[in-house]
Amino acid sequence: MPGNAPVTSRIGAADLIRFIASAYRAAGIPADEADKAAALMAASDISGADGHGVFRLPQYIRRIRAGGLNTTPDIRVIRRANATALVDGDNGLGSLVVARAVEEAIALARANGVGWVGVRRGNHAGAAAVYAAMPLQHDMIGLYFAVGNANHLPPWGGIDMLLSTNPIAIAVPALEEPPLVLDMATTVAAYGKVKVAAQQGKTMPEGWMIDREGKTLTDPSRADDGFLLPIGGYKGAALALMFGLLAGTLNGAANGEDVVDFNKDDTTPTNTGQAICVVDIKAFAEPVQFKRQVDAVVRQLHGSALLPGFDRIRLPGEDRHGRIAERQANGIPIPPELRAALDRMAADLAVPKLL
Amino acid sequence: MPGNAPVTSRIGAADLIRFIASAYRAAGIPADEADKAAALMAASDISGADGHGVFRLPQYIRRIRAGGLNTTPDIRVIRRANATALVDGDNGLGSLVVARAVEEAIALARANGVGWVGVRRGNHAGAAAVYAAMPLQHDMIGLYFAVGNANHLPPWGGIDMLLSTNPIAIAVPALEEPPLVLDMATTVAAYGKVKVAAQQGKTMPEGWMIDREGKTLTDPSRADDGFLLPIGGYKGAALALMFGLLAGTLNGAANGEDVVDFNKDDTTPTNTGQAICVVDIKAFAEPVQFKRQVDAVVRQLHGSALLPGFDRIRLPGEDRHGRIAERQANGIPIPPELRAALDRMAADLAVPKLL
Repeated sequence: MPGNAPVTSRIGAADLIRFIASAYRAAGIPADEADKAAALMAASDISGADGHGVFRLPQYIRRIRAGGLNTTPDIRVIRRANATALVDGDNGLGSLVVARAVEEAIALARANGVGWVGVRRGNHAGAAAVYAAMPLQHDMIGLYFAVGNANHLPPWGGIDMLLSTNPIAIAVPALEEPPLVLDMATTVAAYGKVKVAAQQGKTMPEGWMIDREGKTLTDPSRADDGFLLPIGGYKGAALALMFGLLAGTLNGAANGEDVVDFNKDDTTPTNTGQAICVVDIKAFAEPVQFKRQVDAVVRQLHGSALLPGFDRIRLPGEDRHGRIAERQANGIPIPPELRAALDRMAADLAVPKLL
Repeated sequence: MPGNAPVTSRIGAADLIRFIASAYRAAGIPADEADKAAALMAASDISGADGHGVFRLPQYIRRIRAGGLNTTPDIRVIRRANATALVDGDNGLGSLVVARAVEEAIALARANGVGWVGVRRGNHAGAAAVYAAMPLQHDMIGLYFAVGNANHLPPWGGIDMLLSTNPIAIAVPALEEPPLVLDMATTVAAYGKVKVAAQQGKTMPEGWMIDREGKTLTDPSRADDGFLLPIGGYKGAALALMFGLLAGTLNGAANGEDVVDFNKDDTTPTNTGQAICVVDIKAFAEPVQFKRQVDAVVRQLHGSALLPGFDRIRLPGEDRHGRIAERQANGIPIPPELRAALDRMAADLAVPKLL
């Protein structure tokens, strides 16, 4: 390797989790919660959601130190029906709050066939797929909706940024094939991808953002001069709105102009909302039979003849599945800019640097 | 009005419902069911979903006469958990089967906070919004997924049509503002719009369809030479797949290559699947307070400054709401080509023509 040019290095998953946990503990999170939250954050990195994992840690720590996040929250269910619950996150780490909601939803689905749990007073929780996929091991389907943590989207036809890129994630198990896991922002690109592009000094493709005149915007450092474009025009903007109502407004969480831009504001509680719906497959079908049928559909789709310019059919979750295996074996790539940011954070917290 | 040029005329909603019911009865549907199914079909027309209402009636009747649809089905719940049900439609009219599923889901949501009901062995049921909106009057939210009745979409990167334009509809009530009702195909255009364009001899906009070489296709009479494009590229194709798993595969209904093209095949049972999830607002919030907050979000969005080229912010369901009022007052427009098709059908069935 020539000279000292900064390069992307790999870090083992266990080392990454230890590093994140040490930072959380140094910032005041109790040890058990720090370990759990570290594993949840690293799950984003391991699955390739690079804009949602340790990339966000310096920002989380900055918020904790500014007093904008509760390190010892009382996360609890404040409203219940037979198959639903509303979780109040007490402004704790989003990962811990949403994980609690998913655990509740799985238990409710086991007892009732379906469970729907809403979250209020949470925070940014990482990649949506991490949570939507948790029910898979129980032969359950997960549907997850979240309010994003900054408004980067105007209503369709407008320029005032009143909506976030509110994502949806849906996870469905298969038998021999990888599970199908969809995790998508309702915009052509998620804002996390814009942040990664900015940090890496890359240009964005046309179609990700436009400026307030409606002109294409490709310089990620100018992201504040424009906004993200929704998928399918008015359809994507409408999905963002509806998911915001389900994940935010219904739970008494922020939506619309109440959304706090957590990239710019470290102190105001974000009152982040999420919703998870878990469906127990055995309420509708024998799980093995269902999963075999999912395999059959997957194989039909893979068998399609290809459009010119494509080399294979990629289904949602396949790349993720492959990345999890690859990164668990070979470690998680840490680009030099990210490593520098993590080193600075480690020095501030007086914890050992990432190896 | 000059000469005898064919023109679009208006028909009152009550007259339209009577006409549809008379056709259903003449085709063998018992009177009560015929009345209910006629009102459900007309609900698509009244709300402006012109590709999903009486436009489909000749095709439904043709299928009934060909023996492909059961006029006296035993629609029943064949599997239950506390908050879920699986409805077997016994190959009856899709509208009656889905309406039954929605009624079940509303009752389950009332008792449990949420209810999820799946459908198998149903048929095409009309506009998704009709069913998603049914819970609104109970201060409930509806989410509806369906498997479309013909595969017009390949997997992303492929050319074999293995997916339908599987729609989603979500309906959320407001207090003083119109309810928010999203009803969208996962393709840029629904196939119903292609059929309407073909019947009216219109050219399709670029971006609706491509041919098997990946080239733009704008002549709706050539629809068989290509396929619909999903919203947001791979994202829309992934949504179509996941909605197909939820509405079809999970319920033991058709999905993938099992989908029967009901435009070309009048005899094979379609085994159409749908799913409805109903959330009772009061499980999460006081309904009036929630609906007031929805109003607040709606007003924030309407207040946005406009992008050049737009004259107002249109939110999902607003145009639908306006059309319902306008068409209930002034009647439903029936283009001459549709009237001619309905006249031929009426003559075949020996029922009075539409006025």
